[in-house]
Amino acid sequence: MSKQFGPAHFGPDYVRAIAPYQAGKPISEVAREFGLDEANIVKLASNENPFGVPESAQQAMAKAASDLGRYPDANAFELKQALSQRYDVPPEWITLGNGSNDILEIAAHAFVERGQSIVYAQYSFAVYALATQGVGARHVVVPAKDHGHDLDAMLDAIEEDTRLVFIANPNNPTGTFVPGAEIEAFLQKVPSNVVVVLDEAYNEFLAEENQYESASWVRQYPNLLVSRTFSKAYGLAGLRVGFALAQPQLTDLMNRIRQPFNVNSLAQAAAIAALNDKQFLEKSARNNAAGYRQFVEAFEAMGLQYVPSYGNFVLVKVGDDLAAGARVNLALLKQGVIVRPVGNYGLPEWLRISIGLPQENAVLIAALQKALADDRAE
Amino acid sequence: MSKQFGPAHFGPDYVRAIAPYQAGKPISEVAREFGLDEANIVKLASNENPFGVPESAQQAMAKAASDLGRYPDANAFELKQALSQRYDVPPEWITLGNGSNDILEIAAHAFVERGQSIVYAQYSFAVYALATQGVGARHVVVPAKDHGHDLDAMLDAIEEDTRLVFIANPNNPTGTFVPGAEIEAFLQKVPSNVVVVLDEAYNEFLAEENQYESASWVRQYPNLLVSRTFSKAYGLAGLRVGFALAQPQLTDLMNRIRQPFNVNSLAQAAAIAALNDKQFLEKSARNNAAGYRQFVEAFEAMGLQYVPSYGNFVLVKVGDDLAAGARVNLALLKQGVIVRPVGNYGLPEWLRISIGLPQENAVLIAALQKALADDRAE
Repeated sequence: MSKQFGPAHFGPDYVRAIAPYQAGKPISEVAREFGLDEANIVKLASNENPFGVPESAQQAMAKAASDLGRYPDANAFELKQALSQRYDVPPEWITLGNGSNDILEIAAHAFVERGQSIVYAQYSFAVYALATQGVGARHVVVPAKDHGHDLDAMLDAIEEDTRLVFIANPNNPTGTFVPGAEIEAFLQKVPSNVVVVLDEAYNEFLAEENQYESASWVRQYPNLLVSRTFSKAYGLAGLRVGFALAQPQLTDLMNRIRQPFNVNSLAQAAAIAALNDKQFLEKSARNNAAGYRQFVEAFEAMGLQYVPSYGNFVLVKVGDDLAAGARVNLALLKQGVIVRPVGNYGLPEWLRISIGLPQENAVLIAALQKALADDRAE
Repeated sequence: MSKQFGPAHFGPDYVRAIAPYQAGKPISEVAREFGLDEANIVKLASNENPFGVPESAQQAMAKAASDLGRYPDANAFELKQALSQRYDVPPEWITLGNGSNDILEIAAHAFVERGQSIVYAQYSFAVYALATQGVGARHVVVPAKDHGHDLDAMLDAIEEDTRLVFIANPNNPTGTFVPGAEIEAFLQKVPSNVVVVLDEAYNEFLAEENQYESASWVRQYPNLLVSRTFSKAYGLAGLRVGFALAQPQLTDLMNRIRQPFNVNSLAQAAAIAALNDKQFLEKSARNNAAGYRQFVEAFEAMGLQYVPSYGNFVLVKVGDDLAAGARVNLALLKQGVIVRPVGNYGLPEWLRISIGLPQENAVLIAALQKALADDRAE
């Protein structure tokens, strides 16, 4: 060895301190671990669309499949055209992501450097903390109000070194919602050099009376970036496509960090079809509303506390001790039902349960009743 | 506005200084720009496999297509099993990437922080510079020797703040190759706390006498990370899947930066099939060797200087002035032939031409002859 400098370990300290994201267990993994038949497993863990990929998107993918030896279109011309028409913003205001996870990570890298700070809410999406950590930024975590965002407190928490605020609306994993008027009031007050990433992964599940026009706010606020995904209501989680809307000042920087081929060819084709498939979206929203009522009625009958949800999942309290979530989760896994423990969010007494098809929801309710009865009997 | 701190602009200076990656023009874009029929366009610009996706991979994708409403397996259990068997390393030593572009970016983020330095060679892959810039690191660019890596000079260039060295073998865009023995000698001399990313995107095109066992070196060198892709010989560029082999010390840090769902479900399924499709790889390598001879004979007949290539592309000098590459590129585009200008690599007199099917190569040769004749006549 010719020379040796620096520390004996690899990597910056802030990278070494990251605890990787805990993904929901795939069905195949649960089948392997618990010796179950995959066909009998119900997965309500990852806020996926229980209808799967829309038929329209499958057809679009079949057409695009012949050309997969080619790199994807790095500029996603056709998908940006479709999004541009839908949201009435120029194509140059759109950034595509490998899921909206990619959008959130790109935003942290594009707008924040080591030592600056990022503001986000307690109990908000885990990727905000990971993205903050990944750039060596300081976390400013604002206590939640009723499990949701306290925008006044978040405004007060902005400091001189703050460069980005993450807001999830509806929020994951709690399902809470801030009315559009309150978000807009926040945008009016936030310093103009602080980027606001408004993460609307669950927007399409909102009832009509709760919808608001964030795409048009982008025109008004040069520091606003609206993030959306095709992984939830659109049913394309396995394909990986999300997008952001923002003025060129932000979009240009996003594109400097974005990997050029971050969205694969099939995802681009499927997303165009899904975007135009209103029937599928409506069917998904109807199923979701019915499933939410099914869960809420069952939780109330079982005397379980839950957080009223605006997304496609419900946060429900399954016990009073700090091991309750993990224990009930294991009891559900043994019955072949996968949900999401949220101890990593500081909610160890709770489980997050995605809304599935009526029959899947019924299986969850029965399995939860059994798990809780066994739990109390022990 | 309640308060206003800090600069009026967005983003760190090192992000603002990035010049985004210039992707090869997609066929659809050239058709739009030049008013051509897509069916008549020959694209030899992005080092893609002219056979496209292997039939075996298409079948695997069809089987996986029913489940795309689910998130991908974040741990890619089955693909890692397949790679583990092929390369004789534990699954825990494998990191999956959204193409090897993702691997290279993750490595920079995982191992290098702002102010530290990254060493790479002049005329090596553009993403090394982008990844360096993206983390605010200092570029140490080592002059090329005969358009390739000068490993002795790269070793000397390592400084106290160097945390990573990128080596491309074969190199893109020049096609140069460093024999395995020289790489291994470099690994023996490099400081043990400097990560060596050995980017072998074009490895599968090497003739048997040039192959070397980098996967087994990973066992010996805890600071070595070998990067591979399914985008080139395996024909899956549009699907986005690459991978890295390294010991757990490096792999654990890579996984802290990696986005959990960075490799989509279809890519995982297709990669397993392609990995086991030896016939397809052999057919691709044979076609590539024949196409290389076809190009080299034509370039020699035309009196054009070229860099002997070990990849699936050839760097050829199309003129003596600094506008030659751009001018001949435009003349080729007008004839419906897409190749890659490399002015951004500091090679403005050259073009990089991917090896296609025999008929595609013939179209390129004829179009190049016409372009050069017209160029000289002007």
